[in-house]
Amino acid sequence: MSATSVQPPRDDQPETPGGGSATLAEIARAAGVSAPTVSKVLNGRGDVAPATRSRVEELLRRHGYQRRRGSVQPAPLIDLVFHELESSWAMEVIRGVENVARQESLNVVLSESAGRLSPGQTWVDGVLARRPTGVILVLSGLDPAQRAQLTSRDIPFVVLDPAGDPGEDVPAIGAANWQGGLAATRHLLELGHRRIGVIGGPGGMMCSRARIDGYRAALETAGVAYEADLVRSGDFHHEAGYTAGLALLGRPDRPTAVFTGNDLQALGLYEAARELGLRIPQDVSVVGFDDLPLARWISPPLTTVRQPLTEMAEAAARLVLDLARGRQPSTLRVDLATRLVERASSAPPRAGAEGPAGE
Amino acid sequence: MSATSVQPPRDDQPETPGGGSATLAEIARAAGVSAPTVSKVLNGRGDVAPATRSRVEELLRRHGYQRRRGSVQPAPLIDLVFHELESSWAMEVIRGVENVARQESLNVVLSESAGRLSPGQTWVDGVLARRPTGVILVLSGLDPAQRAQLTSRDIPFVVLDPAGDPGEDVPAIGAANWQGGLAATRHLLELGHRRIGVIGGPGGMMCSRARIDGYRAALETAGVAYEADLVRSGDFHHEAGYTAGLALLGRPDRPTAVFTGNDLQALGLYEAARELGLRIPQDVSVVGFDDLPLARWISPPLTTVRQPLTEMAEAAARLVLDLARGRQPSTLRVDLATRLVERASSAPPRAGAEGPAGE
Repeated sequence: MSATSVQPPRDDQPETPGGGSATLAEIARAAGVSAPTVSKVLNGRGDVAPATRSRVEELLRRHGYQRRRGSVQPAPLIDLVFHELESSWAMEVIRGVENVARQESLNVVLSESAGRLSPGQTWVDGVLARRPTGVILVLSGLDPAQRAQLTSRDIPFVVLDPAGDPGEDVPAIGAANWQGGLAATRHLLELGHRRIGVIGGPGGMMCSRARIDGYRAALETAGVAYEADLVRSGDFHHEAGYTAGLALLGRPDRPTAVFTGNDLQALGLYEAARELGLRIPQDVSVVGFDDLPLARWISPPLTTVRQPLTEMAEAAARLVLDLARGRQPSTLRVDLATRLVERASSAPPRAGAEGPAGE
Repeated sequence: MSATSVQPPRDDQPETPGGGSATLAEIARAAGVSAPTVSKVLNGRGDVAPATRSRVEELLRRHGYQRRRGSVQPAPLIDLVFHELESSWAMEVIRGVENVARQESLNVVLSESAGRLSPGQTWVDGVLARRPTGVILVLSGLDPAQRAQLTSRDIPFVVLDPAGDPGEDVPAIGAANWQGGLAATRHLLELGHRRIGVIGGPGGMMCSRARIDGYRAALETAGVAYEADLVRSGDFHHEAGYTAGLALLGRPDRPTAVFTGNDLQALGLYEAARELGLRIPQDVSVVGFDDLPLARWISPPLTTVRQPLTEMAEAAARLVLDLARGRQPSTLRVDLATRLVERASSAPPRAGAEGPAGE
């Protein structure tokens, strides 16, 4: 597909059903409007009265109308929607999508759902009007009405979901979070640590739940008791790692190692350790999650679980293009492997390292 | 402008000249083609023979043809083009453009010119076909033919150019680089440093030249001699800071302070110092440039010159929207202020801190 092949959708063209059961003419009859009006709704045109539009959308949904593949040439665009555009985490994802887009002469349309879990209706209207080749949603999903709107226009979507809970029938690329938590904790156990703290991500995120379950599995298979007291949580930002770090490391019986929910939390923990006069790794070992570029650059360089964000984004882009081209993938959900990257922030515990800060 | 107001450009509509001197019909006559063919070229449609297309482009350029403002409704998109998509530097810029886009119900189309200083023709073809409301180029420019192509379609563009050299007639948002270099160096002089090293960015980048000129101005107005030996350069990545750091700090008469070209270089310098057994700031003070989020998170937190990248990107987005709406700005070039942010990586030199590493 070349960047010059855009053909604006025409609104006077009869359409035939794909997976659905009704033709465009039948939808029009049921709605009491003309076929071109239904077509305008399908193409996200603004010149349809809101009430008519909702009536048509409702009928499209109820009849499971699906535009025939190939009846309209999509624009050479991939829509990429983030829950929030923060930190180099998002940059790793953008780079992956951009890599595939460039190879395929597509461009990437970037949106932020501004903290909402689903993008707003304005975004959906924009998507219907610009008819991208596909949509990639990062850590956010679509509500049922939005899904129906994309499906009826034959616009495929994939969830890039390291959080791990997109629903079974949604095409998704994720990461092996549980294995990552297991590997991080086993590494610390093998170094000789027995009191290992953990900081989770936001409560609702399944990725965080999976990592902590991996942590727990590593402890219990090693015969080390799981202590709820050593488990903290917060969001995925620096500040949460700092706060949880002060709480964990300020205890008289502080842990000798901490597995943090991600690299930014690890940075916050570094700061907390510094304030408490604790050295990394001599007084406390730290293992992060993600392996952002900065993990190599901080002091000491961070031992962390690599989540291949760029490769995951590339896989999501290839999957959505496959769907757009009518190739059905053998499986709708793929989790890419995570792996431990050992650097200087983890070491065996010193004899007697447990105990009050600054002892 | 709402996201639903996209009207695909029609290719059978006569167009009249704006700033240029020829009508579409005159261009068609001169090229020996029909007016709809010229219109197809203007709209980036693929169904025109390449030779015809170049002939029409050449005539559009020669006649200074300019599409009448408002004759075609642009798509609710802003094109954002990066030289390279690297690090959280780019994320700060994306966030700024995204902020304005969201307020205006526009979406952002992201591209990377893959290290080339101008985006490729594929990108230009895509822009002509999708007709964004405006284009923002980050650290990259357009060659004269590309500029003519956008101008003839009345697609405005702005260069977001912290590098500081876009050409006088190009609308651009930059930063006060020289003042930043001056402030960083004055800060170190006021702390008592006299041997101050500096690491520049890539040779061709005017931003780096301006920062080093500011450094030199601070030294000379303080009566401290400029020593070419203490000036290094490299690209804007971590590795360059590490290499230049080893060279500067490994000298027997090493500087007691270093002003680095950006924050990533400062991280590299931190690593070099660590390897040489030098403490920051006790043995060497460091001042960076940019104030990326990570500057606060590293250890010790980095004193740096804040370049307001998000605000610069917001200003670039507002400027290009003003141009799209026919509002002529009072000035084509605005440099936003930089300011020193003092953190823990700079301190007065220790007595006798100069000298061989590890003394």
